[in-house]
Amino acid sequence: MMTATGRREFLVRYAIETPEPLEKTAEVIAGEQSSGTFLAIAGETDELKARARARVVRVEPTDDRAEPTLFSAQTGRRKRTGPFHRGMVEIAFPVDNVGPNLPALMTTIAGNLFELGELTGIRLIDFDLPDDYARSFPGPQFGIAGTRARAGVAKGPVVGTIIKPSIGLTPAETADLVDKVCAAGIDFIKDDELIANPPYAPFAERVRAVMPVIERHADRLGRKPMMAFNITGGIDEMRRHHDLVVEAGGTCVMVSLNWIGLAALDHLRSYGAVPIHGHRNGWGLFTREPSLGFAFTAYQKLWRLAGVDQLHVNGIRNKFWEPDETVIASARSCLAPFAGVMPVMPVFSSGQSAGQAPETYAALGSTDLMFMAGGGIIGHPGGIAAGVASIREGFEAAAQGVDLRAYARTHPALQQALDAFGGAA
Amino acid sequence: MMTATGRREFLVRYAIETPEPLEKTAEVIAGEQSSGTFLAIAGETDELKARARARVVRVEPTDDRAEPTLFSAQTGRRKRTGPFHRGMVEIAFPVDNVGPNLPALMTTIAGNLFELGELTGIRLIDFDLPDDYARSFPGPQFGIAGTRARAGVAKGPVVGTIIKPSIGLTPAETADLVDKVCAAGIDFIKDDELIANPPYAPFAERVRAVMPVIERHADRLGRKPMMAFNITGGIDEMRRHHDLVVEAGGTCVMVSLNWIGLAALDHLRSYGAVPIHGHRNGWGLFTREPSLGFAFTAYQKLWRLAGVDQLHVNGIRNKFWEPDETVIASARSCLAPFAGVMPVMPVFSSGQSAGQAPETYAALGSTDLMFMAGGGIIGHPGGIAAGVASIREGFEAAAQGVDLRAYARTHPALQQALDAFGGAA
Repeated sequence: MMTATGRREFLVRYAIETPEPLEKTAEVIAGEQSSGTFLAIAGETDELKARARARVVRVEPTDDRAEPTLFSAQTGRRKRTGPFHRGMVEIAFPVDNVGPNLPALMTTIAGNLFELGELTGIRLIDFDLPDDYARSFPGPQFGIAGTRARAGVAKGPVVGTIIKPSIGLTPAETADLVDKVCAAGIDFIKDDELIANPPYAPFAERVRAVMPVIERHADRLGRKPMMAFNITGGIDEMRRHHDLVVEAGGTCVMVSLNWIGLAALDHLRSYGAVPIHGHRNGWGLFTREPSLGFAFTAYQKLWRLAGVDQLHVNGIRNKFWEPDETVIASARSCLAPFAGVMPVMPVFSSGQSAGQAPETYAALGSTDLMFMAGGGIIGHPGGIAAGVASIREGFEAAAQGVDLRAYARTHPALQQALDAFGGAA
Repeated sequence: MMTATGRREFLVRYAIETPEPLEKTAEVIAGEQSSGTFLAIAGETDELKARARARVVRVEPTDDRAEPTLFSAQTGRRKRTGPFHRGMVEIAFPVDNVGPNLPALMTTIAGNLFELGELTGIRLIDFDLPDDYARSFPGPQFGIAGTRARAGVAKGPVVGTIIKPSIGLTPAETADLVDKVCAAGIDFIKDDELIANPPYAPFAERVRAVMPVIERHADRLGRKPMMAFNITGGIDEMRRHHDLVVEAGGTCVMVSLNWIGLAALDHLRSYGAVPIHGHRNGWGLFTREPSLGFAFTAYQKLWRLAGVDQLHVNGIRNKFWEPDETVIASARSCLAPFAGVMPVMPVFSSGQSAGQAPETYAALGSTDLMFMAGGGIIGHPGGIAAGVASIREGFEAAAQGVDLRAYARTHPALQQALDAFGGAA
């Protein structure tokens, strides 16, 4: 958005809770995160304020609470007993306060405001950038089309599995498992996020053991199963490992986004030659308290700006804490338009099998997704190939609008999956 | 620690809450974060488990709650009504699961466990590493002694201030302010975390405008005031900006730790020629819900391993949400022994003036600290030099065990600070 004076701005939306009036607190946030100071000081001229001070553009009260959600020593000291006002606020920041710098953008939209004593709840809900500002960040290089092209999966979900046990397999044992799942017709394989470059199975040895197996199946299949090798590590280590994967003919690298950080992902994107699989482990810490942290809509935009191509969103009826509605909202947000930035491919995982296909499809209205199943594929009673087939059949039924159980009558792999894993709503 | 079989391990301590028995849930965490799987699978041999599976080493129940702290769809679906058991658990992980890789360490100790449906509370409290494992990480290069040497402050607190307004000053205006605070005898100046490399005041121009001013005062003072230039940005951008600072004679760089990330800090440490000032903006998001996220003890160890030299800890009676007891615990943890890793210098800030000196000193039993005051220095009624003097006098009184108000009777700058800002307990 642009103001009457030609100041370019980006918009940030927060859910807040405060014992002070919502409008006043919104002004404190806008001030603290731009040119405001506690003391009026000489340098804060009207000209500087017009250029640099953030503006409150909207305040929408929702409800009041008698007790504060988060503790604040300030409300404690002032013996504030409520009510604690809750609402959504939107703040417009000058683009020129930040420039094309993702970590600095975070400091502005998610920095010391989490510390403010006036706030007993503060959650970053969403943000939006002018298209030309968004273009100053890298964004995905491959996205959905690039992932499909490299995986050789023109349509339908990209069906994947995860190397298990997560930790402890030697390179040769890993290669054996890759051989088995490739023989079963898998599209995609990922390292577990727990394995990166441990002494008992060094990254280079894993690539050397696994890639010839994948190449052999690629010759047979006429498409190369995509393997997301977990290159999570130091900056130079990630570059070395990325290069090893590419030199060996690999088509994907994976990173633990939260723990390498935004600057590291942006760097990987700058030289990356294959799609980047973004693992969000640790995400619960950012989101499980609904009055604190981030909503996924904002989170996926950050990593999308930094250049991730595939992003985990959990799964319908997952084995984790998350309810289906936020899983669905997360997956949709990955595909939703955002300032001209390419969408990312949502990755469903956690306790998934064919039974979740219809709702997963319904949530997206699309098969532009990756569907990871561990037990749902490897533990399928008909064998791994039947496990892979069952998931494809589940999505065929969904895309054709056919009832899953009806479809299963003529598709035994699907029928076995429903019998073994349940999972259908 | 080492097991009877010679397996090297590191220890992690969590506060958890769960409707299941604590012991069982601790086993789920240990399994999920090492070699465990939901299905028993062929690859998880006894030999692999002995090598790779994490061990629960301690479970200490604390109390029960009738209602869950965090929502979990699993407890919801199972209609669990409690009690929800709370306690501390310690888990020993094999060092060889991870190796010398900080982001991979985080995935292990702070990854998908935050997602577990069995948990309605999960907080990383602390961890400890064997000394030889800790030595595989960089650790601080300069720490307290290196910071003191470069700032020319052999004893007492390093007294600092922050460029304000945070945002909007031109390079020339910034240099003018630096000139004023150097003339007043300041030890340390930092950029506000909100300014990095914006279009209206490019980083290179700020360094070019500021450093000649600092050099001029250095000639006069016989010591060079330390300026923490905020190099937060992309990987290559940070390196360019670090090099610019060093070439211009600068003695410190600053980064927003959470938003550049662990891999980026480790990289900066690998080539850094000056102390690294670590800003923790966004920290509230990681810690404000006491049943989620991180305790600062664990957080400072991470950044200490990665190589930060100076780390923000908030301040006594700060203007933020945080109570004094965690501020004090945080500052102490920065100086506490940790696996042979050099301590980091705690940085106090947020609404600080001379009045907080006695408790700050009492909390540490030391003046190995940095004390940042904005208004408490620049807004001092006797002028900036009196502001700087008042803080030094406050710490002199504290170190001599003299009552602050008594000391103020013979120290007018201190007296004026107490009159203007209050702040003494």
